Amino acid sequence: MKQFIASAIQNIHIKKPLVHHITNYVTVNDCANITLAIGGSPIMADDANEVMDITALSNALIINIGTLTERTVESMLLAGKKANQQNIPVILDPVGVGASHFRNKVVEELMKQIRFSVIKGNASEIRFLAGGNSRSNGVDAASEDTQKKEETQQLAQSLAHKAQCVIAVTGATDIVTDGEKVVLLENGCPEMGLITGTGCMSTSLIAVFCASHGEQILHSTATALLSMGIAGEFAYKKTKLIGTSSFRLAIIDEISQLNEKKLVTYGKFYE
Amino acid sequence: MKQFIASAIQNIHIKKPLVHHITNYVTVNDCANITLAIGGSPIMADDANEVMDITALSNALIINIGTLTERTVESMLLAGKKANQQNIPVILDPVGVGASHFRNKVVEELMKQIRFSVIKGNASEIRFLAGGNSRSNGVDAASEDTQKKEETQQLAQSLAHKAQCVIAVTGATDIVTDGEKVVLLENGCPEMGLITGTGCMSTSLIAVFCASHGEQILHSTATALLSMGIAGEFAYKKTKLIGTSSFRLAIIDEISQLNEKKLVTYGKFYE
Amino acid sequence: MKQFIASAIQNIHIKKPLVHHITNYVTVNDCANITLAIGGSPIMADDANEVMDITALSNALIINIGTLTERTVESMLLAGKKANQQNIPVILDPVGVGASHFRNKVVEELMKQIRFSVIKGNASEIRFLAGGNSRSNGVDAASEDTQKKEETQQLAQSLAHKAQCVIAVTGATDIVTDGEKVVLLENGCPEMGLITGTGCMSTSLIAVFCASHGEQILHSTATALLSMGIAGEFAYKKTKLIGTSSFRLAIIDEISQLNEKKLVTYGKFYE
Repeated sequence: MKQFIASAIQNIHIKKPLVHHITNYVTVNDCANITLAIGGSPIMADDANEVMDITALSNALIINIGTLTERTVESMLLAGKKANQQNIPVILDPVGVGASHFRNKVVEELMKQIRFSVIKGNASEIRFLAGGNSRSNGVDAASEDTQKKEETQQLAQSLAHKAQCVIAVTGATDIVTDGEKVVLLENGCPEMGLITGTGCMSTSLIAVFCASHGEQILHSTATALLSMGIAGEFAYKKTKLIGTSSFRLAIIDEISQLNEKKLVTYGKFYE
Repeated sequence: MKQFIASAIQNIHIKKPLVHHITNYVTVNDCANITLAIGGSPIMADDANEVMDITALSNALIINIGTLTERTVESMLLAGKKANQQNIPVILDPVGVGASHFRNKVVEELMKQIRFSVIKGNASEIRFLAGGNSRSNGVDAASEDTQKKEETQQLAQSLAHKAQCVIAVTGATDIVTDGEKVVLLENGCPEMGLITGTGCMSTSLIAVFCASHGEQILHSTATALLSMGIAGEFAYKKTKLIGTSSFRLAIIDEISQLNEKKLVTYGKFYE
Repeated sequence: MKQFIASAIQNIHIKKPLVHHITNYVTVNDCANITLAIGGSPIMADDANEVMDITALSNALIINIGTLTERTVESMLLAGKKANQQNIPVILDPVGVGASHFRNKVVEELMKQIRFSVIKGNASEIRFLAGGNSRSNGVDAASEDTQKKEETQQLAQSLAHKAQCVIAVTGATDIVTDGEKVVLLENGCPEMGLITGTGCMSTSLIAVFCASHGEQILHSTATALLSMGIAGEFAYKKTKLIGTSSFRLAIIDEISQLNEKKLVTYGKFYE
């Protein structure tokens, strides 16, 4: 990690990767702005008539099912296959999987037809995909799921093997694993659950780091979550007496001011 | 009201209600964040394939027609009926009703097929639904409608009887009525009309309060509008020399810092 | 310009124009808020069942293809034709044209069937429409396109003749032309490219100014871009040490505090 981090953000600024988002309409503006803040370039497009053209221009693809509709399922499949052909990383954010049969069925289909580089979710979402016990609580992790840390890590490793990709589980301790290696991250603060979009924004950061660092998917993913955690800590310190909306903005502000020195100095990661 | 207010926010934190929003893509992020700020949990989903599953998990449902499409009308009907079966409160925000035949027809259909707990609108919207004279001015209340206060109160009471639910009319004086009892609220400031989303955010607050207070729909609705009004006043004081975008954020900040003491100290309500 | 600017914002406050937006879901909230901040009133509606009713109420129409879908193409055509019948200004923001065959085909169709008052884009978008060499880089202008200033100005003038409307090209120097007259604007700062939505928000401002100033489309468009540029400069000075999210908000704040005196004092325009 240390070696990776040393030039991680500089590499983004050299590449300025274009990230195609097929995502939800709730947090889409924050995703676009955090992509720009870290040094990438966002493009949002979800119509089946154009997603293949847009993916062809891009350096990474995000599929986020936060406000899934029947119309966009086809777009996700078309874009995902195109991205696989182009050999660019595809990141899945299975928002709220477990909360409806429709989401479950669509995620199953996506995982069957598309080769993902990273699947990122909270404890409930990843446990659900790994076939473990989970209790969907909407789009937030159920507290009983977040407490079973060791079991969740094992489920994440097993899912990484099954899905042949990196799995990232966000929570008090973030877990990132390719099935063999595991990186644990201890930055961030619980108040990040009081605003919407921290999960979706983390996914945007993962895509930007992955698109800028070739095959180093595990370290790219871990560094993205590390960045989010550190930004969250700094932002919370500045805004805790003001309120949650200022906190949300301050996270993006901090990402735009982030550099390698801060990552090294404040990052709490364990390999 | 006083007795209700005394534990109103504490009750939300105990329940942490999940609020299913079928809403517009303009203010959806603010709605999600204000739901979290007051202590609830938001979930946005509008596809006919999943809305019944999502409503089944939820403690309240919002139907907001701000950017209505043909696709979501079916979702609104399915979710609304499911919510009625589950006996959870359903809140209607008939944004811009009167501005197009399509909105008028859809609202008529929704009111025929779904039992609402609360319908909340501005003077023009509520006057339109009550069959009074109104002049649609887009999504904002026409000034000639906002001036006829007594007539609007009578129309609101008559609509409450007809629709068998609580009616809330936002304006310089907010009116909340179940047809018999009337609560008038005098907080807020006219500058709240200079930002988008205060109406939609009020609806999110109404849903959170209603979901946390069983059958006390009248007082829940009034306390939600009271919260918005007080937050608006504090936010305006802090940001009037800065600008409207800071004002919008500060409203959500203030909601996240709200407590029963502030409601009692600053609330101007008349029963 | 000087004479036009002298009462430009006052005229908006007298008219308080309603601006119908058919736009993307990424920056829609910023568009609504900046429309209000300058003194207009926004309404967003994109369903084919109601766009003609909504346009009929409005004083200007924006067609922005940022997140174009097959469903909204019909709505754009219906609303555009209605706006032409009503003789209200129609503004086209061809976001990302050149990035997909679908966008190209739709823009061609829109330009065939609708009479626009203004087409506003970045250098890559306008060069593409004018038939010049351009390289689509997603939704941002390619740097090789932004450098060919004189050639771009000639292409803009030629496009203005061909499309019989005002063409606005945003960039380090903004170009506004009706084919004959040219206004060049030198306000703004490169950091405006680090946030999403400055282009879309400029389009909202153009619509508000055009709707408030009858046939003075060239000066309305130039003053809108001048306003955005000055707001960007002030906002950047206040937030450059804080971050990009604060910068984005501060732009809308500055627009809400803008007046004719600031436009005259800080505006850098050349006719």
